[in-house]
Amino acid sequence: MLIYVLDIIGTFAFAISGVLIAMQKRMDVFGIFIIAFVTAVGGGTLRDVLIGKTPVGWMNDLNYGYTITLAVIISIIFKNKLNRLRTSLFLFDTIGLGVFTIIGVEIGISANLHPIICIALGTISASFGGVIRDILCNEIPVIFRKEVYATACILGGITFFVLRYFNLKEDLIYIFTAAMVISIRLLVVKFRIQLPSVYQK
Amino acid sequence: MLIYVLDIIGTFAFAISGVLIAMQKRMDVFGIFIIAFVTAVGGGTLRDVLIGKTPVGWMNDLNYGYTITLAVIISIIFKNKLNRLRTSLFLFDTIGLGVFTIIGVEIGISANLHPIICIALGTISASFGGVIRDILCNEIPVIFRKEVYATACILGGITFFVLRYFNLKEDLIYIFTAAMVISIRLLVVKFRIQLPSVYQK
Amino acid sequence: MLIYVLDIIGTFAFAISGVLIAMQKRMDVFGIFIIAFVTAVGGGTLRDVLIGKTPVGWMNDLNYGYTITLAVIISIIFKNKLNRLRTSLFLFDTIGLGVFTIIGVEIGISANLHPIICIALGTISASFGGVIRDILCNEIPVIFRKEVYATACILGGITFFVLRYFNLKEDLIYIFTAAMVISIRLLVVKFRIQLPSVYQK
Repeated sequence: MLIYVLDIIGTFAFAISGVLIAMQKRMDVFGIFIIAFVTAVGGGTLRDVLIGKTPVGWMNDLNYGYTITLAVIISIIFKNKLNRLRTSLFLFDTIGLGVFTIIGVEIGISANLHPIICIALGTISASFGGVIRDILCNEIPVIFRKEVYATACILGGITFFVLRYFNLKEDLIYIFTAAMVISIRLLVVKFRIQLPSVYQK
Repeated sequence: MLIYVLDIIGTFAFAISGVLIAMQKRMDVFGIFIIAFVTAVGGGTLRDVLIGKTPVGWMNDLNYGYTITLAVIISIIFKNKLNRLRTSLFLFDTIGLGVFTIIGVEIGISANLHPIICIALGTISASFGGVIRDILCNEIPVIFRKEVYATACILGGITFFVLRYFNLKEDLIYIFTAAMVISIRLLVVKFRIQLPSVYQK
Repeated sequence: MLIYVLDIIGTFAFAISGVLIAMQKRMDVFGIFIIAFVTAVGGGTLRDVLIGKTPVGWMNDLNYGYTITLAVIISIIFKNKLNRLRTSLFLFDTIGLGVFTIIGVEIGISANLHPIICIALGTISASFGGVIRDILCNEIPVIFRKEVYATACILGGITFFVLRYFNLKEDLIYIFTAAMVISIRLLVVKFRIQLPSVYQK
């Protein structure tokens, strides 16, 4: 139940981050809605398509669509005040990152996939909405260049399976996994950590 | 039967519009074929993948492939005369928009999905081939920026369900839905209507 | 068995070619890994999604993931020496092209699809990893503009069905198909052959 509420909060935050980027690209309201939608549910949709869990998630539960629509309307109305909410939005977004990772890992487990694949699915769920958003906005995905985003999901996924190996209760696994993802993301942003880039001399 | 004929006409028109854009990008004949293919059947393919209706449509009915191949050959041969046919092409394209919307909505209904999702599927069927085409051509999708295209599909989809609620006969529902999509699209182009774009000051 | 070994060699070579392009784009190590991954298994993944063979291939056999990881590590360590291996890499890449085509065709046959669709699936398997790679790197896919790559797969696929029609043994079909793909690709590169591009005056 709690995880569902957090899932919706994450969806809301991801949708707003999509709106902000679509506005920068001067899209019309339809474009803004699609970018918000894709940012919020694109990762989960890709995950569902790859494992064959169709119709994909948002088709079976309209609350995702309603949440995204609400996020779009609110962001358009308060468009010039969103910057003041930057910190809250970042926090919600980070919660979404943690929760989406857990959901992706759990779906992988219920499909009987190998732990490594489950971690990949958690990472896809949490961070590939942003990848699809960037492609639709004609940019190289930011998480391939500088944002340490997926790494937090991967380490969270590893935490999940380590704790599961020690037979911790599900609730505790969820809390520690989310805490891991969230704290890595916060540390990374606070200390402006970047993964090294590699190129040929 | 009529709807199948119209579907093929729409596929033909969409394929030609793909060829025209691929030529602008100076692609080779393979690239031109792929862009034509994606423009024509990309929306339906995305719809089928999202709901798990696989193998996707064009794999089960080669007429789509043949139609697209024919469209590519004809457009390459008559490449310098296509501009004279601009009006006819626009008309066929608009017919395709109406028909693809109806097909998408119907497929959603037969998958027992919620009317909102069915309307989304109609819109995806009719307008996301162009989105995939634009991404492959390295452009921000035109329907996210200025073309009022998807909105016509959405309003057509709503018309569909309103008429269905009043138990109209299927044929009439189809005719009115297509008429709605087509007339909105024609009005929009005639009066150069655009959706408002929103951005931060 | 041999085809599996060649499949892994092809995966390795495709992954390295992905790394090289990701480095040119100055991606970080996560981005490099994803581009390598997508280049190597993206075509097969798209094929599996389109025909509904899910979970997609690399989720059921971790050897693909391990091979790609190894390819990324090796390419990063020896990044300034890769140019000397250009010829070997090109050869491995071409072997991959041939083998991936055969695998795609075979999967189409076991899904009872029409030979034309099987050839399309072979071509998608072998050449659409590069398409997805180019999109993620924000480029118009190189095989739509100048590289004669997919054409080799198509001609290989046709060879496959011609020989099958004459009831050749499977092994021989494989060898001749791969030989066809590989020799066309080599000829094309040696003589710098390009497909004609078409554009309006």
